[in-house]
Amino acid sequence: MALIVQKYGGTSVGSVERIYNVARRVAATVKEGHRVAVVVSAMGHTTDELEALAHSVSARPPEREMAMLLTTGEQVSVSLLAMALDNLGCPACSFTGPQAGVLTDGSPLSAHIIDFNAVRIKEAVDGGKVAVVAGFQGADSRGELNTLGRGGSDTTAVALAAALNADSCEIYTDVDGVYTVDPRLVAEARKLDEICYDEMLELANLGAKVLHPRAVECGKEHGVVIHVRSSFNNEPGTLVKEETKMETGIAVRGIACDTNQVKIAVIGVPDKPGVAARIFTALGQAGINVDLIVQSVRRNGENDILFTVQEDDLPKTLAALEPTVAAVGARHIFHQCDVAKISVVGVGMTHRCGVAAAMFEALAGEGINIEIISTSEIRISCLIAQNRVKDAALAIHKKFNLAEAELNIQKKAAKS
Amino acid sequence: MALIVQKYGGTSVGSVERIYNVARRVAATVKEGHRVAVVVSAMGHTTDELEALAHSVSARPPEREMAMLLTTGEQVSVSLLAMALDNLGCPACSFTGPQAGVLTDGSPLSAHIIDFNAVRIKEAVDGGKVAVVAGFQGADSRGELNTLGRGGSDTTAVALAAALNADSCEIYTDVDGVYTVDPRLVAEARKLDEICYDEMLELANLGAKVLHPRAVECGKEHGVVIHVRSSFNNEPGTLVKEETKMETGIAVRGIACDTNQVKIAVIGVPDKPGVAARIFTALGQAGINVDLIVQSVRRNGENDILFTVQEDDLPKTLAALEPTVAAVGARHIFHQCDVAKISVVGVGMTHRCGVAAAMFEALAGEGINIEIISTSEIRISCLIAQNRVKDAALAIHKKFNLAEAELNIQKKAAKS
Repeated sequence: MALIVQKYGGTSVGSVERIYNVARRVAATVKEGHRVAVVVSAMGHTTDELEALAHSVSARPPEREMAMLLTTGEQVSVSLLAMALDNLGCPACSFTGPQAGVLTDGSPLSAHIIDFNAVRIKEAVDGGKVAVVAGFQGADSRGELNTLGRGGSDTTAVALAAALNADSCEIYTDVDGVYTVDPRLVAEARKLDEICYDEMLELANLGAKVLHPRAVECGKEHGVVIHVRSSFNNEPGTLVKEETKMETGIAVRGIACDTNQVKIAVIGVPDKPGVAARIFTALGQAGINVDLIVQSVRRNGENDILFTVQEDDLPKTLAALEPTVAAVGARHIFHQCDVAKISVVGVGMTHRCGVAAAMFEALAGEGINIEIISTSEIRISCLIAQNRVKDAALAIHKKFNLAEAELNIQKKAAKS
Repeated sequence: MALIVQKYGGTSVGSVERIYNVARRVAATVKEGHRVAVVVSAMGHTTDELEALAHSVSARPPEREMAMLLTTGEQVSVSLLAMALDNLGCPACSFTGPQAGVLTDGSPLSAHIIDFNAVRIKEAVDGGKVAVVAGFQGADSRGELNTLGRGGSDTTAVALAAALNADSCEIYTDVDGVYTVDPRLVAEARKLDEICYDEMLELANLGAKVLHPRAVECGKEHGVVIHVRSSFNNEPGTLVKEETKMETGIAVRGIACDTNQVKIAVIGVPDKPGVAARIFTALGQAGINVDLIVQSVRRNGENDILFTVQEDDLPKTLAALEPTVAAVGARHIFHQCDVAKISVVGVGMTHRCGVAAAMFEALAGEGINIEIISTSEIRISCLIAQNRVKDAALAIHKKFNLAEAELNIQKKAAKS
């Protein structure tokens, strides 16, 4: 009799019919003899709708009041799921984040969980009830409501699994698991059986929407094995865990593509110390996350600085740059939207040479130009033309034999 | 600088535009130099819509889960009103019932307020903020969410005024105050300047929807003067208070008409001790509130028992009666819907003779037959034909000179 935490996203509880699908799945797990705690998000597009409602009242609603408003979304879905379970003869009890014991740091719309006192949840599941917990929310020590920011329900589920010392943490989503590459880009994309936390973290940060980065961090910190799987079938999905059995055998676990990048070029930056710092400090203060950065040295004591930001941040970026660029005496700025970032991720590359070379070779073989390169310990990213993303993904996928099962790759590696 | 509690119902906050109307009224009160705490209900028909949603999930949703669902309604309206106030430059802070300190008795859908620890509300208003409090809700000592039942926001407001020792408790509604009789029935209906708690309690229990009976009880218990007034103008409304200055001068304060009554007749009840008790015990156990009761003695050792119930309770009443009626050996039951209860209320009638006689005279003058009569210390009720309600109300209104100001009536009384 295992203790299982399951998490269902907004799409999975988007209608009364879908809530019953979830309820039946939960009830089936209970019938197998397990104790279950379920974390759910707000129904469908509820959060977006509530945000729009707030903005119809005020252009700048106070964050505290926005959190007060948004937390109603999950409160609705947990109560309805508990009603559905009860109606299926499966006793259930819903909990808001604060009732569940989620203690947050007091930041209204981007709070972190600082403690999860799951005593009431434990009492419920030990008492034969399904605990239905509102994801995405908690309260600070004064009882002020906070939300965890987008994707926060994943974090709630992993933190709850840690607090309960659960046997399993299942994140249900609309895909079968984590793939070597987005299957919409590359038909040969293969579902991974396992992936380690650091690789998942890189992929999640690179825009793989299957799991939120903070949930992965939380899983890593507390050693919670996260099972990412589909809510539409009973196939096993992908296990996110500390060490994977194939870890050393392969260099690259997967590929991430991000087409929401904009390249910004600051042209004719005087070659003096502190100039780049001023530019990036201005961006940092404006809350803009700068991604790939490259500085090319030109003649005449001038540099060009190139970097990328998320497309959403473009207006803010230009607004923050203009006065700074004028102040430091750079000549002008331009931006380009038809770019994409393609990355390979794998903890195996740490101890292997030639991974970057193989990636560049694959791109060169397709005649794809690399505009910016950036690397971390376990990741290599290249900025390329957006209309070549599909070709690039396919070529890299082939180059690293990602369509083949890990065992085969390992055998080949042993032979070579 | 007074401390004022204001309460606005669901209609007053039914849209973003209406929320701004409320916000402007609150902001104006703040500008006059007062500290303000506002209690609001859920927007428009939100509560009905949430109930319908719950019933689309389950025919019998657990009460606890229903409370979890319904309490989101006020949480939405308080956050939006706080945003609107903030946008008008009037600092505000919203509170759920539990955050406001409303401690309830743990009954999910018909809880009573057992304590109001308004320390956070006091802190907010003393700190120059408008406290926006969710009506209709609270939490028990475990943090379980409870609702106070329909009309509960009135009770929240009065209890908050008591807890804060507020200078004034204003209940805003869509009518100008409490009238001598429903103005839709009698054009000469006059708005009362004052009414005492007991009279208001009788009128509220008789179906006057302007103020919830429990709010009146709470006001009486804590000596809170309640000002019932319109949210559409700035006219003074009706003060509900302990003693009114004209109290002894007049016999009848107002008239209440209730057309949602059904007359039930149990025919041929054996004239034996305990039979009536069995019938009314069965109704009580089914949760049915029985109103007017009369037993008429017939020949042959048989009685007829007549009583009224609310129209909504008719199916439950018949279901509860049928087995009991068979068991006690009564002959049959029938019911009649085209009846109405008309009542006169006034604390002055306690010490005056002839009030009932005058009422019966007024009805007789119109040729209106009285089917059942019931009285309390300060009330006389008659069951009459529903299609004669308007004539009855007008005749009684005239008989007791209710269209005239209290001062005139008192002068006349002194002369006679």
